[in-house]
Amino acid sequence: MKVYLAGPDVFHPQARAIAAAKKALCARAGLEALFPLDSVIEADPDEPKPILARKIFLSNRAMIEACAAVLANLTPFRGPSVDPGTAMEIGLAYGLGKRVIGYSNVGETFAARTRAFLRLRADECEVEDFGPLTDNLMIDGAVERIFACDAGPDRLWTDLASFEAALGALSPPRQAFA
Amino acid sequence: MKVYLAGPDVFHPQARAIAAAKKALCARAGLEALFPLDSVIEADPDEPKPILARKIFLSNRAMIEACAAVLANLTPFRGPSVDPGTAMEIGLAYGLGKRVIGYSNVGETFAARTRAFLRLRADECEVEDFGPLTDNLMIDGAVERIFACDAGPDRLWTDLASFEAALGALSPPRQAFA
Repeated sequence: MKVYLAGPDVFHPQARAIAAAKKALCARAGLEALFPLDSVIEADPDEPKPILARKIFLSNRAMIEACAAVLANLTPFRGPSVDPGTAMEIGLAYGLGKRVIGYSNVGETFAARTRAFLRLRADECEVEDFGPLTDNLMIDGAVERIFACDAGPDRLWTDLASFEAALGALSPPRQAFA
Repeated sequence: MKVYLAGPDVFHPQARAIAAAKKALCARAGLEALFPLDSVIEADPDEPKPILARKIFLSNRAMIEACAAVLANLTPFRGPSVDPGTAMEIGLAYGLGKRVIGYSNVGETFAARTRAFLRLRADECEVEDFGPLTDNLMIDGAVERIFACDAGPDRLWTDLASFEAALGALSPPRQAFA
């Protein structure tokens, strides 16, 4: 079974090492993981940047279409919420009838994170507070299960505990015969 | 034709007035606009908050399914990007084969907004810079056209020029007979 690794991991300086570690865990669980940076996209230096962006979009879309499930990294990225590209991919996968499992290396609720953000930069809009929800209700609603734990700032993008928990939900270990 | 109004407008103190203004413009263009707050959701005071969140999720999903198109408010919300609920709805609508048209009341590119955000709160991750793109490439990729203009901070959520432009793309005015 193929699974797509969605998340802002692609922007991390250690993106390929992080992806390699997650792919190894998937392989051990019998799953083939696809990661956005896997695809080799020919970038013509004279090509306008939006054309390259379009090629990457189509490549990611094709990977999601090819997978049975998405493992989505919901660790907040540049604000109180999930990375917007990941949010879009969650919606796309959900719309295509794929399974979506979420994980986050931040355990705090969306409401608590939003209030903390607003101390930095206040606005007039309401805080969405549905208690324990991990993010905007459209994210939590599309995601079958979410595994969140506090990895701490130094291991925010490298800690694999929440990822392993999500992977376990996607691919439960076989029961030994009694 | 029905059209879904996606956006963080729902969190604004004047959400219903903003929606009424947008709906009136849609009606004038011959479109029936659906807005998340249209649905009356029975909230039992004893009910856990995630159950209510789930009801709202299902109501929004049903509205998107009922529509032929989505007009998505991409005005950045609490960070350099689109609201994550809107991002998910863009992906869902795109996955369901609906037309998605975007509009934003901020004209600055995603790359410029991200760099400005990082002056406030730096991180080690890469800045996605595909030149003129309005947001993460998965957002721009799913959206047929984007209309962005600088409404200024006082009219960030109330100015209707970018919305009207998006509406025009969805529903071009009939040509008069020559």
